Amino acid sequence: MHDLLIDSPTNWERWGSSDEIGALNFLNSDEVLRGLQTVKKGKVFCLGTKIGDPRGEPKSTTRSHSTRLNVRDKGTYGSGKVQSGFGGFESADDLMTISLQGTTHVDALGHPWYDDMLWNGYDARTTIGALEKCSVEPIAEHGIVGHAVLLDLARWKKTRSLSRNYVITLDDLLECASSQSTSVLEHDILVLRTGWLGLFYKDPKLWFGYDSYDEPGLTYDPDLIKWFHEMEIPMLASDTVANEKMFHPSTGILLPLHASLVRNLGILFNELIWLDELGADCESDGQWEFLYIASPLKIVGATASPINPIGMK
Amino acid sequence: MHDLLIDSPTNWERWGSSDEIGALNFLNSDEVLRGLQTVKKGKVFCLGTKIGDPRGEPKSTTRSHSTRLNVRDKGTYGSGKVQSGFGGFESADDLMTISLQGTTHVDALGHPWYDDMLWNGYDARTTIGALEKCSVEPIAEHGIVGHAVLLDLARWKKTRSLSRNYVITLDDLLECASSQSTSVLEHDILVLRTGWLGLFYKDPKLWFGYDSYDEPGLTYDPDLIKWFHEMEIPMLASDTVANEKMFHPSTGILLPLHASLVRNLGILFNELIWLDELGADCESDGQWEFLYIASPLKIVGATASPINPIGMK
Amino acid sequence: MHDLLIDSPTNWERWGSSDEIGALNFLNSDEVLRGLQTVKKGKVFCLGTKIGDPRGEPKSTTRSHSTRLNVRDKGTYGSGKVQSGFGGFESADDLMTISLQGTTHVDALGHPWYDDMLWNGYDARTTIGALEKCSVEPIAEHGIVGHAVLLDLARWKKTRSLSRNYVITLDDLLECASSQSTSVLEHDILVLRTGWLGLFYKDPKLWFGYDSYDEPGLTYDPDLIKWFHEMEIPMLASDTVANEKMFHPSTGILLPLHASLVRNLGILFNELIWLDELGADCESDGQWEFLYIASPLKIVGATASPINPIGMK
Amino acid sequence: MHDLLIDSPTNWERWGSSDEIGALNFLNSDEVLRGLQTVKKGKVFCLGTKIGDPRGEPKSTTRSHSTRLNVRDKGTYGSGKVQSGFGGFESADDLMTISLQGTTHVDALGHPWYDDMLWNGYDARTTIGALEKCSVEPIAEHGIVGHAVLLDLARWKKTRSLSRNYVITLDDLLECASSQSTSVLEHDILVLRTGWLGLFYKDPKLWFGYDSYDEPGLTYDPDLIKWFHEMEIPMLASDTVANEKMFHPSTGILLPLHASLVRNLGILFNELIWLDELGADCESDGQWEFLYIASPLKIVGATASPINPIGMK
Repeated sequence: MHDLLIDSPTNWERWGSSDEIGALNFLNSDEVLRGLQTVKKGKVFCLGTKIGDPRGEPKSTTRSHSTRLNVRDKGTYGSGKVQSGFGGFESADDLMTISLQGTTHVDALGHPWYDDMLWNGYDARTTIGALEKCSVEPIAEHGIVGHAVLLDLARWKKTRSLSRNYVITLDDLLECASSQSTSVLEHDILVLRTGWLGLFYKDPKLWFGYDSYDEPGLTYDPDLIKWFHEMEIPMLASDTVANEKMFHPSTGILLPLHASLVRNLGILFNELIWLDELGADCESDGQWEFLYIASPLKIVGATASPINPIGMK
Repeated sequence: MHDLLIDSPTNWERWGSSDEIGALNFLNSDEVLRGLQTVKKGKVFCLGTKIGDPRGEPKSTTRSHSTRLNVRDKGTYGSGKVQSGFGGFESADDLMTISLQGTTHVDALGHPWYDDMLWNGYDARTTIGALEKCSVEPIAEHGIVGHAVLLDLARWKKTRSLSRNYVITLDDLLECASSQSTSVLEHDILVLRTGWLGLFYKDPKLWFGYDSYDEPGLTYDPDLIKWFHEMEIPMLASDTVANEKMFHPSTGILLPLHASLVRNLGILFNELIWLDELGADCESDGQWEFLYIASPLKIVGATASPINPIGMK
Repeated sequence: MHDLLIDSPTNWERWGSSDEIGALNFLNSDEVLRGLQTVKKGKVFCLGTKIGDPRGEPKSTTRSHSTRLNVRDKGTYGSGKVQSGFGGFESADDLMTISLQGTTHVDALGHPWYDDMLWNGYDARTTIGALEKCSVEPIAEHGIVGHAVLLDLARWKKTRSLSRNYVITLDDLLECASSQSTSVLEHDILVLRTGWLGLFYKDPKLWFGYDSYDEPGLTYDPDLIKWFHEMEIPMLASDTVANEKMFHPSTGILLPLHASLVRNLGILFNELIWLDELGADCESDGQWEFLYIASPLKIVGATASPINPIGMK
Repeated sequence: MHDLLIDSPTNWERWGSSDEIGALNFLNSDEVLRGLQTVKKGKVFCLGTKIGDPRGEPKSTTRSHSTRLNVRDKGTYGSGKVQSGFGGFESADDLMTISLQGTTHVDALGHPWYDDMLWNGYDARTTIGALEKCSVEPIAEHGIVGHAVLLDLARWKKTRSLSRNYVITLDDLLECASSQSTSVLEHDILVLRTGWLGLFYKDPKLWFGYDSYDEPGLTYDPDLIKWFHEMEIPMLASDTVANEKMFHPSTGILLPLHASLVRNLGILFNELIWLDELGADCESDGQWEFLYIASPLKIVGATASPINPIGMK
């Protein structure tokens, strides 16, 4: 990775040595207002996956399934173990265990690293026990609001889903945009629909019925990185687990976009976003730009937060 | 409660017998667009409290504190227990246990009940094990986006916080609005700042150093309920635990607004919202209306979801 | 089940209407002393399975894998997030989430039921929220200490493991005992080794590579129940998930021994006990009797407790 | 600590460089048989505290209270969310979150350290993420069975509990033994009753109603350490949180017995053992020796395991 990315651009120090939110800095008030101008109909799309879904949760198999359990409900009152409040008030309570990287989520910039340094040069040892730097908390203090563009690669390719072996190229992005008569502008949140997430809900074996997991996605390519850098993309979102191929095809290196885009350029990753209804709507009205809003939870020291992003048109 | 609320209005069946989101139905596309018109500067306020805060979490003491723990971090690699990915990629992962009613959250309509019936007449036994009806999931599928108005009661009363014994009246709401030269309009999300939440962070003993917990708040009053009903308020938010006095002063009944507003009228409750910076901004520019956006997680069967609401101006 | 067991014996009321430990009452001081007499060499066998085993945990797939996570360790100190105690003291802490029925465990008598009644006739609604009656707590207050006999069915059949289709009969038990030149005595804890648990550790597919899970085991048979009843067996232990075939072969009824032995006769079930080293030792010295000791945790309201049973010879 | 213990004895390497169980090695088969000889009546005392106790759990306030929740019970069936098995079988399931150092437990030898080294010289970095060395697992593979002696200091002092300021000396141990007409023998498990644990259940304020927590206990003293070393004590148990004063009175050093006894001599610590009924029994029959049996769970990488120790007489 060190050699592969030795000439790859970085944004370290661009926003000062104490910055922890990276390319999210691009999303200032002007960008909020630019995003708002895309909203014409007042339609709201909620783009998160279900948590605690009995069909399973689409995620890396090394991460545990969410567990939500009732602490108190009508059964507790009915069995006499808890008394109603004075006047007859009763209520249900619950708690949940959740893998913070498990369902639709935004990664903190301190989630990935190589060469012992995180985004902006922070020491990787600051991750020990809890993320002391670049946790999801400063992202959640800022909020993620901006102008987004959907590139619906599956629709462009006229397929239910790109295949697990498919490598998405920069040309694909540009041609897909062109086919949609749209274009990616500076500071746009880039949202890619591959259709992959739908396969999981059809049958998890379509994801996991192989010796090793892979998925359709972008991968490291110097021109692609240059494009992300010059376009000052604040965030990449897609309907896949990793937002990229698991391995760089020519070198076998693991997750080089997490390294070059997140760790080096400070670009936020929103993984496992659900885009099927939004994609259909964009096709029907021909408007592929929308206001993107995500509001991660302010979890102290966290590597990620589950989100239910909103797409507004 | 049954007797107290016998003539109190309800919205049951107003949106059909299978409705599970109640007054959230008021927040249609027109209301989204009305909310958007308040945004002038592109400022974003993130109104959630911190989760896993070492200072403690402001919540009912019967609910457990969130626990977030690392599953993998630089320490795990450094000790040789996990190997870097091919090329040197490393990453941190974590999971969390959280009381869903614990920090800033929105209640599902199935959270409170009396007389064995939830919102819209659903049987309270549907809460057993998990909320089969009126969980937070349909709310999270809809999203909460609308025109909100902040009534800053603490600022109006020129106090750091209303006292724990203070009962907020309908007249207080109207006079506070008048003092702000604003007014509450139909379908407005009503956001009340009491200053109470700030006391917790100053010193938890200011909340819990009494024999029983109480807080400043609204309470049951037929005129108040009538006003909420006629104004078609979709949601009430405040910087307190319960959005109301714990007990109705004259009868001692527990949480009668949860009964009359949530269970009978289907109004959403957002509790423990953090409003100090937003309040200061509204005072400085004299604009107390804003776009409110909350996007609860789609947790199957849940009584609530943690949220980090966005206020946009 | 009701019809199948209509003439099946019960011990309800045998130890009074408030009893919650059933056949554990057989294990009085005399039985403790009888068990002690089997100890000749002072050898101790610890018969629990590993918890949080990276190889997986042998258990029903509907139960979640244990998760143990560090709260504090050398990494936390090394990163400066926690300071050493005065003088330099440091320590590691952790916590765990565990399915109480997940690994080697003893069932509470309130775990299984039919016809809306638990052991001793308690109402099944007493299980709601927590076991109000017949939880594992009174068992843990009593302790489980007695004279046990191992019947090593796999060794008798000269096989690594009985096959998943194998139905163990009463005759099998008696013939196996005879082949070992031992006999089952009144009040003996009956411990059966099938070899099945070893298959899981060899390859979980040997357990789960079928359309539905099954395992070798006893199943309902009137003569078998009569024998358990007359022998006043206090506990049945085996190296399988359920201590019985999943389904009664001739009727298809689910888990009829849980019904007839646990719920009706009050016999304790210790499932997933690890017997390979104990079995080898018994073969080598020809002594199949041993002192069995298990000390479940006093978990209030629990359906089971993980245990690491001791076999002493 | 380094200076304080510079001449303090250690058992490192005594059982080889790969040993992870320390003084537990003293408890061989002969010691098991010696312990068994104390059993005359067949009486069994279960010495664990309750887990998930609504009265609270006696433990350091930095550790979280256990949470046990039902996954399935009669309510789940009654509400139609789960169907009975074929034939009518139903059952209850639950899971638990527990701080492994929280209630009655045995510490792993890797729990405490100073000077960056654990028991036997292992690097403290082996604790990162999980205890790679000296976890509770090898202790649980061995089992803890031996001859124990109870010194009932509270009874000797004719007090409900020693006071929180009380420092127990070696002379106290010897005089208390003498007053009981008993003596501590080589390889005895040393069990101390201070009465302190009973105060918690009377009122937690008797423990926590002070600016900082302290408790009656032993503390570092060269003669005491020498005595433990020469007596080859395998384990120390007491009815307190730490088995020692929080701070060494003359130097203020934190937990020097964890350092000198656990880390240097490899002696096991069983904390928070419940001794009130056992103490009363010993007084009534004048026999203070008993068979001690504890069987920690085989939790991979754990710093401790909850136990319900058995005292048998």
